[in-house]
Amino acid sequence: MKSLQIDLNSDMGEGFGAWKMGDDDAILDIVSSASVACGFHGGDPEIMARVFAEAGRRGVAAGAHPGFPDLWGFGRRIIPFSLGEIERLVAYQIGAAIALSTYAANPITYVKAHGALGNLTQTDAGVATAIAKAIKAVDSSLICVTFAGGLMHPIANDLGLTTKAEVFADRAYTEDGCLVHRSEPGAVLHDVEFAAQRMLRMIQAGGIETTSGQMLPAHFDTICVHSDTPGAISMAAQVRRVLENAGVAIKPFK
Amino acid sequence: MKSLQIDLNSDMGEGFGAWKMGDDDAILDIVSSASVACGFHGGDPEIMARVFAEAGRRGVAAGAHPGFPDLWGFGRRIIPFSLGEIERLVAYQIGAAIALSTYAANPITYVKAHGALGNLTQTDAGVATAIAKAIKAVDSSLICVTFAGGLMHPIANDLGLTTKAEVFADRAYTEDGCLVHRSEPGAVLHDVEFAAQRMLRMIQAGGIETTSGQMLPAHFDTICVHSDTPGAISMAAQVRRVLENAGVAIKPFK
Amino acid sequence: MKSLQIDLNSDMGEGFGAWKMGDDDAILDIVSSASVACGFHGGDPEIMARVFAEAGRRGVAAGAHPGFPDLWGFGRRIIPFSLGEIERLVAYQIGAAIALSTYAANPITYVKAHGALGNLTQTDAGVATAIAKAIKAVDSSLICVTFAGGLMHPIANDLGLTTKAEVFADRAYTEDGCLVHRSEPGAVLHDVEFAAQRMLRMIQAGGIETTSGQMLPAHFDTICVHSDTPGAISMAAQVRRVLENAGVAIKPFK
Amino acid sequence: MKSLQIDLNSDMGEGFGAWKMGDDDAILDIVSSASVACGFHGGDPEIMARVFAEAGRRGVAAGAHPGFPDLWGFGRRIIPFSLGEIERLVAYQIGAAIALSTYAANPITYVKAHGALGNLTQTDAGVATAIAKAIKAVDSSLICVTFAGGLMHPIANDLGLTTKAEVFADRAYTEDGCLVHRSEPGAVLHDVEFAAQRMLRMIQAGGIETTSGQMLPAHFDTICVHSDTPGAISMAAQVRRVLENAGVAIKPFK
Repeated sequence: MKSLQIDLNSDMGEGFGAWKMGDDDAILDIVSSASVACGFHGGDPEIMARVFAEAGRRGVAAGAHPGFPDLWGFGRRIIPFSLGEIERLVAYQIGAAIALSTYAANPITYVKAHGALGNLTQTDAGVATAIAKAIKAVDSSLICVTFAGGLMHPIANDLGLTTKAEVFADRAYTEDGCLVHRSEPGAVLHDVEFAAQRMLRMIQAGGIETTSGQMLPAHFDTICVHSDTPGAISMAAQVRRVLENAGVAIKPFK
Repeated sequence: MKSLQIDLNSDMGEGFGAWKMGDDDAILDIVSSASVACGFHGGDPEIMARVFAEAGRRGVAAGAHPGFPDLWGFGRRIIPFSLGEIERLVAYQIGAAIALSTYAANPITYVKAHGALGNLTQTDAGVATAIAKAIKAVDSSLICVTFAGGLMHPIANDLGLTTKAEVFADRAYTEDGCLVHRSEPGAVLHDVEFAAQRMLRMIQAGGIETTSGQMLPAHFDTICVHSDTPGAISMAAQVRRVLENAGVAIKPFK
Repeated sequence: MKSLQIDLNSDMGEGFGAWKMGDDDAILDIVSSASVACGFHGGDPEIMARVFAEAGRRGVAAGAHPGFPDLWGFGRRIIPFSLGEIERLVAYQIGAAIALSTYAANPITYVKAHGALGNLTQTDAGVATAIAKAIKAVDSSLICVTFAGGLMHPIANDLGLTTKAEVFADRAYTEDGCLVHRSEPGAVLHDVEFAAQRMLRMIQAGGIETTSGQMLPAHFDTICVHSDTPGAISMAAQVRRVLENAGVAIKPFK
Repeated sequence: MKSLQIDLNSDMGEGFGAWKMGDDDAILDIVSSASVACGFHGGDPEIMARVFAEAGRRGVAAGAHPGFPDLWGFGRRIIPFSLGEIERLVAYQIGAAIALSTYAANPITYVKAHGALGNLTQTDAGVATAIAKAIKAVDSSLICVTFAGGLMHPIANDLGLTTKAEVFADRAYTEDGCLVHRSEPGAVLHDVEFAAQRMLRMIQAGGIETTSGQMLPAHFDTICVHSDTPGAISMAAQVRRVLENAGVAIKPFK
């Protein structure tokens, strides 16, 4: 029997100056990959260097987590940029993340888009392509993390990028394998034990479990756990505990 | 007789969004190196990518021109950062410049600090060291451009960086080889022909000409011409014309 | 025969720090009202205070010109804010403009929305209402400047605000009295003399002249002339000259 | 026997967008005056309007708390502005606070400078004068809150402003009545009960108690309690409890 393994990643480094967002140190003790904000929706050079270094100290892999330039809106709003502009503002952020992760002796290995920009990769092939082109132009060896079963996966592959697919520990999936929209009841799972067991079932079955309990065959490489929602740390910890107890190794995907 | 050559560089890409600063296209037709703002005191991803690409199209070498994070003050004010913070905010900007210059197929070959940050490298060994350490950490093959005869030159060399020394086409030098302070009369040269001929004399003599006409032996590799002051373009053009007519080749220092 | 009069207003104070936009001093010698940016899409406290003071010195009335918080996009992009958020970000800017215009001894008398925010007042009753409510809440004696014949006019009136209607010296009007979209040929008039004569015809007829030459009856109180487009100053000057030569007095609408 | 009363004020509204700073709602239940950030070092129109309104709902007086334009540094760094620039950037923020507090039906009655800007009023008469002049120019009926016994008090009075003097619940005082510098041991009091009893002694004696226990006669009108430090809420609550139990009424100073 093949031994199972999975990556746990979390979006972090999302404070700004004196402001905190989530508990980066607590989550770094749980995850295997750190998706670090690049200063446009959150994060600053101090926070970036610190999180990259703390991640490295724990053997946690590093990634860039670029977003729209929108500190006020925390990258959660769609700011109207052209596709070319998106390419360049993502390239800028990847470069900053490469520099500070190299400085912190834990060079990034992947890129994953944040917030509204990340959501657009699910619905807008142009945006997905723009981000993939930015990655390719800056460093084509960087892995492109996409939603499992999502629009961006084949786009990034076609451009020659290595891709890794992500599922969400606390988000419900429709019968089509899409995220249940946040406005729907039950979109976000709060039951820590259920969420953790669901992840285990999904890993063991190699699929995405929908709200009806159906298992849709799907490949994924990483589980996103949050660091900034109420109960985030205990959910992340429980996911890790349940998976490890079942013999699933938690390791960076690279 | 050895053939003479020199680099001409100019600070550019210093607009922001809809705002312009200087005439980047005109100056790109004159210089051999473009020192491009990185978004902290001026510049944005659009401007950076465009200037790097236009420079490349003309065979003009590219450099990063990081400054204090101070759009309002255009990087001309000393913002109180610790030395560690300066290291990291410079590293961030170098990374962004590497990314966008790579994207634009004209990768940067050097780094030169802007405005108040650049001036501090003349007077504050800690700041000079911080910037040199940032360059070394991000990419130790990047050249560090310093004031000719300045404080940063040996500091950067001691860290193992290649350095190139800069003189200013329109700035007067004291008998010690320092810049005459801007508050002093005659600090800035406005006579285009005099400025151009002075540069020629300095290249031929291998020294810095002081306000009294004394020539202090000094090595330099690049002449900074401005793009954003009144008469900047004609001074830059005249410097190039006088040097070329005298047989001095204008080439990137790398 | 009743003597004719009209206000000329221009958007100004739209630089930021070291960056300039338009020639504020030249346009202040031509217009009777200055619509001053409030720091969100352009402008800063220095520029605001200076333009308010220079306007006052020339007897030019002052107004607040609030926009979306988007320095990078110069307020020309629709940033997705809720209507409540728009109310509050407009109120903030009006307050800042009241303070600095009072400081400069030329208190604002009106408010006119900028760029994408202003355009939305033509198409989105919710946005028009939000802006009008912000004006009313901060100082209900402030005049609300709206597009002539536009959606916001009755909305602001219904809230009890005094309104003044604006036409554009350099923009063509459709047969419905709307602005020809900028993407259409002929949307922007470049013929200075034609534009000036058209304004005179419109004032004398009391209507809006469409691209076909039809005159739609419409009331307006102020003509917007630009300060930042090529040829802006000469068009503004010619509009003033033609109107004055025809006996139309140029005066603030208050 | 004259009945004693005092104001309790706290700096609040210091989040930004999605970022929180302190527990505004908890502290609003304790204090009698809310010193609200104006968007330059923290705060945004949403937060400002909300805090002004919540304060009003509780009968808590409102004040403007302007700082240096430095979101990254949270207003804690001295940004090199000229005195004239300080006047204008403070005026801008006061105007924004007037507008949003009026919008929220709880108009500000006072101004108190934040962070590095506030500290400068203790050591730099020029800065103290600039801030007082900004208040006077925008609305001379606004009260100027100053450090008890500090440099700004007579300056603001001489300009004709009403002043109120502030002491700090958690800061030790030197034998000269100055704040013990934060770098000194014991500068910040952490013993909630001691801090509360010290405030009671100071109110009853009408003086400032120094680290040696000496009581320097001094008038003060308001006690600053923090909202954003560990244990801040319990210290603020204990100060209120001790004072009220001793018969000291907690009321806005106006």
